[in-house]
Amino acid sequence: MKDITYKIDATSVSESRADVTIRDFTVIIDEPEKLGGTNAGPNPIELELASLAGCINVTGHFVAKEMGISLKKLEIGISGTLNPAKFMGKGGDERAGYKSISASLDVESDASAEDLERWRSQIEERCPVSDNLSAGTSVEVQIAD
Amino acid sequence: MKDITYKIDATSVSESRADVTIRDFTVIIDEPEKLGGTNAGPNPIELELASLAGCINVTGHFVAKEMGISLKKLEIGISGTLNPAKFMGKGGDERAGYKSISASLDVESDASAEDLERWRSQIEERCPVSDNLSAGTSVEVQIAD
Repeated sequence: MKDITYKIDATSVSESRADVTIRDFTVIIDEPEKLGGTNAGPNPIELELASLAGCINVTGHFVAKEMGISLKKLEIGISGTLNPAKFMGKGGDERAGYKSISASLDVESDASAEDLERWRSQIEERCPVSDNLSAGTSVEVQIAD
Repeated sequence: MKDITYKIDATSVSESRADVTIRDFTVIIDEPEKLGGTNAGPNPIELELASLAGCINVTGHFVAKEMGISLKKLEIGISGTLNPAKFMGKGGDERAGYKSISASLDVESDASAEDLERWRSQIEERCPVSDNLSAGTSVEVQIAD
């Protein structure tokens, strides 16, 4: 299969707010007021969890169809815990991002427990966002010429 | 500094669309029609890049302030390339997610090239989303009891 390249562009509107253009869509990212923002949208690390939820939804349905499983309901709760010290420049041993991320799938289906376990494991393996987070991805930040 | 936990909840509206609740915000994630969706919003892997852009904006301004650098303009372009084979269940050697992600920062500032390089490198190191992607993060997907 051929590679696909995705691109997005963001404009910094303020020190907290970025307006992101994705095809015909605009996504507004901001920080809540208590973190110095104007609360015009979710913040970057909340959106990181949202992208994982969207990916689990798409991958979950794709794999279910493949397995002949019907999903009557799918709710996805995601949480992640981080320590802000490194971001804030306070040093310490903690990493900057989430230490771990947990997704809990509330699913209604007639599938057997064994099939659902196989379904769950396929999602973890094949969801692109899950793969990017868990397996590590080269991220290059460059200043444009 | 104390740990902070972030949580989001998503409802699967269709096999492509998830409506994500983040505090008082709703983010609609969908696939374009050519990928079987209803195009009600950006797709999960586009949103993954958007979250990185938002994080670079916040971290970039935070670090600039720390360094006494003024940013007159900041535009962030991000691209990532992936191969859909693993997601599609076609196997092969390619990973499911982006093979690599590149962010290009179009910045206007009076800072010296050396200071801007130090600024860039601090962003890469301290942006939580960049850290999660590049350093690998435990992602646990569980079926709720």
